[in-house]
Amino acid sequence: MNVKVVSRILEANDRIAGENAGILRQKGIYSINLMGAPGAGKTSILERLIPALNGKRKTGVIEGDIAGTEDAERINSLGVPVVQINTGGACHLDANMIREVLPELPLDGIDILIIENVGNLVCPAEFDVGEDMKAMVLSVAEGHDKPLKYPLMFQKSSALIINKIDLLPHVGADLARIRKDALALNPRLKIFEVSSRTGEGFDSLTEWLSGLR
Amino acid sequence: MNVKVVSRILEANDRIAGENAGILRQKGIYSINLMGAPGAGKTSILERLIPALNGKRKTGVIEGDIAGTEDAERINSLGVPVVQINTGGACHLDANMIREVLPELPLDGIDILIIENVGNLVCPAEFDVGEDMKAMVLSVAEGHDKPLKYPLMFQKSSALIINKIDLLPHVGADLARIRKDALALNPRLKIFEVSSRTGEGFDSLTEWLSGLR
Repeated sequence: MNVKVVSRILEANDRIAGENAGILRQKGIYSINLMGAPGAGKTSILERLIPALNGKRKTGVIEGDIAGTEDAERINSLGVPVVQINTGGACHLDANMIREVLPELPLDGIDILIIENVGNLVCPAEFDVGEDMKAMVLSVAEGHDKPLKYPLMFQKSSALIINKIDLLPHVGADLARIRKDALALNPRLKIFEVSSRTGEGFDSLTEWLSGLR
Repeated sequence: MNVKVVSRILEANDRIAGENAGILRQKGIYSINLMGAPGAGKTSILERLIPALNGKRKTGVIEGDIAGTEDAERINSLGVPVVQINTGGACHLDANMIREVLPELPLDGIDILIIENVGNLVCPAEFDVGEDMKAMVLSVAEGHDKPLKYPLMFQKSSALIINKIDLLPHVGADLARIRKDALALNPRLKIFEVSSRTGEGFDSLTEWLSGLR
């Protein structure tokens, strides 16, 4: 019974995700579903990336949180279009939520749409929202055991952004092990190492993102 | 329709949680549902706490993860009884999972049962498993905005263990703001500040835990 209900929910979600993808493609928008644990630094990464992309690609952002508008306010102060979704209690964004807010964005003026999911290493990976690509952020402060403990997100993501590398001298995380275990789960995973605090590593991430179409 | 299904799931869960609570009470076991984001340091805290409690209270542990047995192996090496639950894909433990594994533990030899939930700041707070108390771990590396973004877990927890305070000089987190926002959500929240890396703050946490009955 439970499984049947879940499967119907996922089928309905996939149908709406397909419709979202059609709308975004028609507008020439490349969309990224950005996932990661709470506090991995998803919004801080956008605060570095969006100004760096400025002049190359026009960005728009959908912020997903259980509650609050703090992330949307941070993005809004960068001068790009942003909409905040408050899921109430849901631990992930789904395609229907994205469909509801797409009309709130000036889609004709957006080249890259970044959808920042709710902070969670599990459920966001299970729900497509119509994106071209899933990407995930992992902070080195979370430790090197995350690929083995949360494999689905690493398998579903096209890019892994390892953040807070400035903390490496102060935490016990083994960067080589993160890379090895993540690539074992997903050999085509594109891996970036950055620090949203110092700005290290953002040049190659920006260059890669600005080439996505 | 969705809401009805969820409500039936939660009702069934609460009934089983009540049965678990009855079994644990009968054995004189105090149980703690330990929650927190991935990489907050839940297992590392147990690696400090369990040896410190040794001689005062006998501990047992249930480890919850999507996949893998790394956490249970770490606890096993401390010489206390431990069972690993692999949820497969579920982002939280539920009462039925706990009921399934209780017979695997030597309940007559346990005073405090610590149930380490799946790393997730959202769903674990929604499912009682029969515990006497919920407690949560928050790493300062996750930033100070978590109470406002994930309010339910702060509201449901009796204790907040703020971990990795050794990283405070290297991250931008405002400890006073965490305390203020968490207490605004839950004025009775008991707050501890610790570093599982240096051992700082564990004396008062251990003293408090060893007094729980």
